[in-house]
Amino acid sequence: MVPQLADFERGAATAAAQLTEAERAVVERELAVLRELGLRGGLLPAMRRVAAAVPERLYRDSAEVLLRMHEIAGSGNHQSCLSSLPTVQACFQLGLVPGGGEPAPADLIVGRGHIAPSFYAERYVRGELPFLPLATLHQGGLTGVVHRDWGFANTMRYSLGVGPAQAVSRAWELKRRGDRRKVVCLAGDGELHEGVTFECLRFADEAGLDNLVLVVDANDKGIEPLLKPVNRDYLRSYLRSVTEVDGRDPEAVRAALAGALTAPGPTALVCRTRKEGHSYRRPAGPAGAARPTFAATGGRQLAELRDRTGQQLAVFTADLAGRFGLAGQVPYQNVGLAESLGVGLTLALPPDHLKVVATDAMYYMDSLGMLTEAATSVRNLLVLAGRSWGAWGGAANAFNLLGLIADTRVYEPVTPAEFRACTDRLAREPDTVHVLSMVDARFEEPPADCAADIDDGVWIRPPEDGEEEAAVVSFGYATTLLAAATAELGLPHLHCAALNPVLRQETVARLARFRHVLSVEYNGVHGGFGEWLRNRYLLPVAVHGVEADIDNCVHEVQLRRHGMGPEQLRELLVSFRNSQEGQHAVARA
Amino acid sequence: MVPQLADFERGAATAAAQLTEAERAVVERELAVLRELGLRGGLLPAMRRVAAAVPERLYRDSAEVLLRMHEIAGSGNHQSCLSSLPTVQACFQLGLVPGGGEPAPADLIVGRGHIAPSFYAERYVRGELPFLPLATLHQGGLTGVVHRDWGFANTMRYSLGVGPAQAVSRAWELKRRGDRRKVVCLAGDGELHEGVTFECLRFADEAGLDNLVLVVDANDKGIEPLLKPVNRDYLRSYLRSVTEVDGRDPEAVRAALAGALTAPGPTALVCRTRKEGHSYRRPAGPAGAARPTFAATGGRQLAELRDRTGQQLAVFTADLAGRFGLAGQVPYQNVGLAESLGVGLTLALPPDHLKVVATDAMYYMDSLGMLTEAATSVRNLLVLAGRSWGAWGGAANAFNLLGLIADTRVYEPVTPAEFRACTDRLAREPDTVHVLSMVDARFEEPPADCAADIDDGVWIRPPEDGEEEAAVVSFGYATTLLAAATAELGLPHLHCAALNPVLRQETVARLARFRHVLSVEYNGVHGGFGEWLRNRYLLPVAVHGVEADIDNCVHEVQLRRHGMGPEQLRELLVSFRNSQEGQHAVARA
Repeated sequence: MVPQLADFERGAATAAAQLTEAERAVVERELAVLRELGLRGGLLPAMRRVAAAVPERLYRDSAEVLLRMHEIAGSGNHQSCLSSLPTVQACFQLGLVPGGGEPAPADLIVGRGHIAPSFYAERYVRGELPFLPLATLHQGGLTGVVHRDWGFANTMRYSLGVGPAQAVSRAWELKRRGDRRKVVCLAGDGELHEGVTFECLRFADEAGLDNLVLVVDANDKGIEPLLKPVNRDYLRSYLRSVTEVDGRDPEAVRAALAGALTAPGPTALVCRTRKEGHSYRRPAGPAGAARPTFAATGGRQLAELRDRTGQQLAVFTADLAGRFGLAGQVPYQNVGLAESLGVGLTLALPPDHLKVVATDAMYYMDSLGMLTEAATSVRNLLVLAGRSWGAWGGAANAFNLLGLIADTRVYEPVTPAEFRACTDRLAREPDTVHVLSMVDARFEEPPADCAADIDDGVWIRPPEDGEEEAAVVSFGYATTLLAAATAELGLPHLHCAALNPVLRQETVARLARFRHVLSVEYNGVHGGFGEWLRNRYLLPVAVHGVEADIDNCVHEVQLRRHGMGPEQLRELLVSFRNSQEGQHAVARA
Repeated sequence: MVPQLADFERGAATAAAQLTEAERAVVERELAVLRELGLRGGLLPAMRRVAAAVPERLYRDSAEVLLRMHEIAGSGNHQSCLSSLPTVQACFQLGLVPGGGEPAPADLIVGRGHIAPSFYAERYVRGELPFLPLATLHQGGLTGVVHRDWGFANTMRYSLGVGPAQAVSRAWELKRRGDRRKVVCLAGDGELHEGVTFECLRFADEAGLDNLVLVVDANDKGIEPLLKPVNRDYLRSYLRSVTEVDGRDPEAVRAALAGALTAPGPTALVCRTRKEGHSYRRPAGPAGAARPTFAATGGRQLAELRDRTGQQLAVFTADLAGRFGLAGQVPYQNVGLAESLGVGLTLALPPDHLKVVATDAMYYMDSLGMLTEAATSVRNLLVLAGRSWGAWGGAANAFNLLGLIADTRVYEPVTPAEFRACTDRLAREPDTVHVLSMVDARFEEPPADCAADIDDGVWIRPPEDGEEEAAVVSFGYATTLLAAATAELGLPHLHCAALNPVLRQETVARLARFRHVLSVEYNGVHGGFGEWLRNRYLLPVAVHGVEADIDNCVHEVQLRRHGMGPEQLRELLVSFRNSQEGQHAVARA
């Protein structure tokens, strides 16, 4: 979805409280110019026109711009952007960044997709961007991940490991047509853990692609510290030549990269850098903000489970110990950014041990074969699937895909009791993989939960005798977004924790008596919860859920993009209750 | 599914025509003993008892046994088994193979899962197996892929790349509990193309797993020749020490492997071997048998498409050029056994070129994230998904998973005209990935096809006026299995080529008039074609399809395991037509 003027207006309004007076004044002037000149011709040309009309620069140092962008956004990968900034500056100096007017001496693929803000910061100090979009980072205006709309040669959706594939695809095509240009790929050392990056480097070598320059930001960190620094011998085994430079020195990077562009053959340029934290956090929020997300209670809940059952635990995470709150709660093995490996490590452990794999839902999408292997051979396997829907993406269909794997059931617990009920169910049925969607958000627990029967539903607001007009059914997290509205509007409301509930007969019979049933899920519609109710029970449920692709913006913005903001849902319920057509009305931001 | 006495009886009967007189006599005696002694205590102990009761050996050379097994089965990976045979013999000599009585000096994980027959052949000459199971290879008795039931420490479902994960999982667990045993993993050089094997080797090194011995059968071939021999420097970069031996010399392998078991630290043992063909084929069948499978017409159909449209083609295959009949028809790039790479290589090609990726349906399961990336950014992407359902597996749910990917549609064409209609549809809607299930079987074309409207259905046997009792709807290949029976029984029969058809209103209206509708698909029920009809149209369709997991046996046997043999389907239709309850009856082998 290409941002519109309204997105920048909204983004600027959201940012206003975080802006300095000088920034606010500039942003207002820029907005006025943008309103006048419009967005025709594409985002980058339009923004360039605004920058030309308001040439004043608030900052001259792109590192300072980066910091301000993240302070204003309140989230993002500030340290990653900072660690790559000198390399980005070198790319600008060498004319590798599109949009400079001159034809670039090589094709630049930014594989480290989340360092897009470094490019914006640099464009800002060079007068190519106004401050306005920078103030809307992650808020629906400026995306934090590389995108063609914002002057990159490549667009990324999922980031990790895709960049080298894009680069090798490009290098293959150039070679095929006899074009001798090189392809420069900016990658991170953590990203090189992904198996597909190996497939790319191996293939590039074996197919004789002598036009690849792999630039590695070697900060010895993914999200957590790497087990070991990136293996230079490995890089050398496929790229033949490895040059190492101080990545904090733009001039050193520029010189080395210029050399790599003219030298014959492929090469890896390892830029030694430093990274402090990973995700940006505003310092010292109010005490309430420290409350953990539901996902972050995972470690504590696993510790309780272990203490309660005495079961031996083996926990593997693909760099997401922080997301699941594992540290200090249970021992865990970080496998780096290598999700298939995380699943694979469960394959030969003792059957009675509880095996836990923890990563983001979308990152299982390249491991479903391995998960199928595990589902057919591993007992006691608990899959924690983070669900962020945030600036980093998410995947609307991830749980629906996981739910199709043989011998696998998906749940989205929203209370500790439901989490416990899921793990109890796994203990009763250890041959079935239990996937738990762990929502990366803070929310109020609903007034009732499915702990008593995790496969059935529970009435959040039970129907009264004879009440047969309209009812709502919701799945997991969506229940928490809806509960206030159904209570206020007095609508019967059934909550399910199972993606594919197996409802008790009386529940089905009660539902079937309603003339209209609306199902709501913060999940992909195709193959999801509502469609399951239609298919399994032939209930003519009207399905509300995620129909569009994800965007890269913060949770609050993302929610509304999919018509799932509580106020949007309330509006949907009103129209659903008031009219027969209402059941098909879907609110959209 | 553990084979039963009846499976061996059936397997022996199937094999009879291929057996020599001496073999037939022995198999009969062995069957008699098996009937008497039964299968209690597990397959291997039971077979050992039979071997003890009928000690006569027909062959003393396990290579000869291997050849006979494949001649009898008529399919399999004879050359792969042969190339690993000396290594397998070395494993027996070192006491690494379970079941020898003595505790093994190390744990053996057979990662090259399809060399299981080499172990059986060796067990046979050693008097540990009778000839009977060997004669039932791929026929529902003996499985061609390693399985715990047959004396292996690991079971495989999908084979490629899983073995190293199992080995590293085991090595991690041994290390964790302070056990100093080593883990020996038999891998193939082609298999090491899979990204996950890199994830495993990288992790083993970084986590300090000094107990891993990777034995590589380096025959310089996957199914096709490798682009380059396995990179020894790469192996050295993670396993620290690489030893190379003549893999055709069992004594040399034994000595080197014995050394690796006692030397400190991890090591790779590269066994240089040779492999002729890949899949076993009976020499000189009757002329009719040479007719290609539908999958194998892919290359010709792509060539026709290119000639018709003048479109530029870029074809990538993960070692399956033979399966799709690409050679001599269109240029293609073999990427080795690296499916994510195959998809990834389409990411940065010119938008108007037709990008084709060709591998087996199940091998996309570890590339769905990459495919999602492609679906959102690549135009004109045609995914050919082979469907073998044979000795090598398959995946009941593969197409249902592919069908859930955003901006993706799945079709199963069964005529060249339907194939063409699918590619025409892609030309009209280039932003949608078109996945074509390419059935790896020979079949009669149905009397009508969906070429005129590939998203609708077509009546194979149209309903007559007023006919409203019972009708059948079927998807793709299933239509060819059913067509004779519906014609004979006079049942109205609608055929669809789309996994998720978007039926014309008159088609839906006509179907809805039937009191009973049976849907049939040779595809996983969960999330499949029949469930789509129920969900989308709220039609109370009774769904017949694949409910169980796949088995490793030839197509003909596999079909019947899932109740999809034409005679089983006929029986199903009779009971469906004759009784209301019949709609729920499902024939099973």
